[in-house]
Amino acid sequence: MKTLGIIGGGQLGRMLALSAIPLGVRCRFLVPKDDAALLDFGARYSQLDVAEINDFTHGLDAATTEIETIDPRIFTQVMQHAALWPTPAALDLKRDRRREREHLTALGLPQPKWSQAGIHADLPAACAQVGFPCRVKAASGGYDGRGQWKVNSAADIAAIPAEAAPYTVEAEIDFRGEFSLVAVRGADGDIRFWTPSLNVHRDGILVRTEPDVNGTVSRDEVAEGERCLRTLMQSLDYRGVLAVEFFRTGAGILINEFAPRVHNSGHWTIEGAVTSQFENHVRAVLGLPLGSTALRAPVITWNVLGFWPDRQALLAMDGLAVHDYGKAERAGRKIGHVTLTNPDAAAIASLESLLG
Amino acid sequence: MKTLGIIGGGQLGRMLALSAIPLGVRCRFLVPKDDAALLDFGARYSQLDVAEINDFTHGLDAATTEIETIDPRIFTQVMQHAALWPTPAALDLKRDRRREREHLTALGLPQPKWSQAGIHADLPAACAQVGFPCRVKAASGGYDGRGQWKVNSAADIAAIPAEAAPYTVEAEIDFRGEFSLVAVRGADGDIRFWTPSLNVHRDGILVRTEPDVNGTVSRDEVAEGERCLRTLMQSLDYRGVLAVEFFRTGAGILINEFAPRVHNSGHWTIEGAVTSQFENHVRAVLGLPLGSTALRAPVITWNVLGFWPDRQALLAMDGLAVHDYGKAERAGRKIGHVTLTNPDAAAIASLESLLG
Repeated sequence: MKTLGIIGGGQLGRMLALSAIPLGVRCRFLVPKDDAALLDFGARYSQLDVAEINDFTHGLDAATTEIETIDPRIFTQVMQHAALWPTPAALDLKRDRRREREHLTALGLPQPKWSQAGIHADLPAACAQVGFPCRVKAASGGYDGRGQWKVNSAADIAAIPAEAAPYTVEAEIDFRGEFSLVAVRGADGDIRFWTPSLNVHRDGILVRTEPDVNGTVSRDEVAEGERCLRTLMQSLDYRGVLAVEFFRTGAGILINEFAPRVHNSGHWTIEGAVTSQFENHVRAVLGLPLGSTALRAPVITWNVLGFWPDRQALLAMDGLAVHDYGKAERAGRKIGHVTLTNPDAAAIASLESLLG
Repeated sequence: MKTLGIIGGGQLGRMLALSAIPLGVRCRFLVPKDDAALLDFGARYSQLDVAEINDFTHGLDAATTEIETIDPRIFTQVMQHAALWPTPAALDLKRDRRREREHLTALGLPQPKWSQAGIHADLPAACAQVGFPCRVKAASGGYDGRGQWKVNSAADIAAIPAEAAPYTVEAEIDFRGEFSLVAVRGADGDIRFWTPSLNVHRDGILVRTEPDVNGTVSRDEVAEGERCLRTLMQSLDYRGVLAVEFFRTGAGILINEFAPRVHNSGHWTIEGAVTSQFENHVRAVLGLPLGSTALRAPVITWNVLGFWPDRQALLAMDGLAVHDYGKAERAGRKIGHVTLTNPDAAAIASLESLLG
């Protein structure tokens, strides 16, 4: 029996555990913040001191993380005792958006024209370099649409908070849609892709995602996207699931960002694919053979944001799988997701009206 | 958020928990014997004293059990503080095979001709009443083919252990096959059936089960079987999943036995049905709406008995879901199951050769 260590106490860690346990994998958790999703597994909050981390790593076959943003010394300490996937080098790129962009630039992968500014005073030059309109993003700490500012002209720069520095500046693009690719790389370098995900964001937050069963994303776009993931994963000696969000433009696809972990746009794989992103991440991290990523059925996943709608009504819907993360309700918070299998127009409409 | 209490620490409890957690249901366990499957959830073995049972029941929305055979006073004590489904009355029938047969007789449901013997000395008369050949079964404690003796003539009776008394005696039947029906009854009396399961036993132990996608069981047999389950569930004011094993004979179907819980012949529903038996049991027990029991895809489930074959080879098989109960290997023990989705002849052959 193998033992997997999971760093992080949110829904991603929980779904990893729910996939790992049937494989006969014992899970152990290091939970660095007050997050309820893993309490079902007996996980307790950790102060992340040396003794706790040593207890956590004792006898692990491997460790993984659902979060990139905790103190990197924790990753280093875990690495002293157990293999950690993704490696700290890959996680490090996500601590600073400038490093992520630099890495993509070094690999020659397509992305929006970009520049960087270390302090607020550097923003006018950085924006001018990229051209207007552009988008300024905090290099650290922004997610789900937070820490981003649209800049139509130099006059807009003053309103950007100085304490958000450092920044990246990214050119506005000829936006024609977006999609993401989720892939897994195994211990032997085997890479498998799930069907591309079509994503709908609202106010920067993913609200709906589904496998592209109708070929909305062209074969050329998918091929170029898969090339990007292969290049990126190989550059990082990657093991596990990695997701990349792409913009579709008139001049081809551009990388918005990558996530070195299981990703919200892959939640549909639980019901929609032969092997879910969670199970394949567990398999990869533990050096087990990968499972098939083939599509099982058309599905659509919606995030549940802030508050639960009438749960009885949700549970009564045929073919709807409910994933409640066990979190307290709070405006805008991702507290669950629901996945509809073999969706038809009537079911989609009634579900979207329920979800608001 | 609802809290469900689960009595029992084996694979059924574990699969119930794995289905309950995504629904936002918190699980608590009362584990009456040394069984490893639930350790992942922080469950600890209980001495089943009053204080422990009171801790277990505190604040539960409902309780359920994966075992029928523990001291019935435990069920009674749980019932003092929390709704328990199935009710002790239903569980009680399974403590003595004579009571189960008497209940079926009272309902007028089809079963093999049977009689009973309180002590060994009563066996000759009981066997003669049923006729030879017949099958003597220990009224309590027998399962997976244990506690059963084929009696071809009165001369065979002497070899039956006296300490296995009391007994039932059941007529040998014109056996043409078997199947089981798994159904769930909700709080509102709504009853839903999964596709009938075709079962293959070896030495009395279930080794293979699959939904009957080709109509091997006739429509009349299914209709009569469903009538049996409806009658039985209504007679017990049942809530949750119940399974009935049927023999197919030239004179119609006969009930072998029923199980007041999720059942091994329903494990295929995890991958093969829209809603699994485990999730619907949780929904029913908590008074939530039932999910669809429709077939998602053809599947076959094999039990893994005694020892694991090459796990790398299993995990490398396309479309094979592995369920490892985390139990120590021991000859004949059910330590896991595997389910193949969209099975073809080549995959079935290579899998059966792996499983031995």
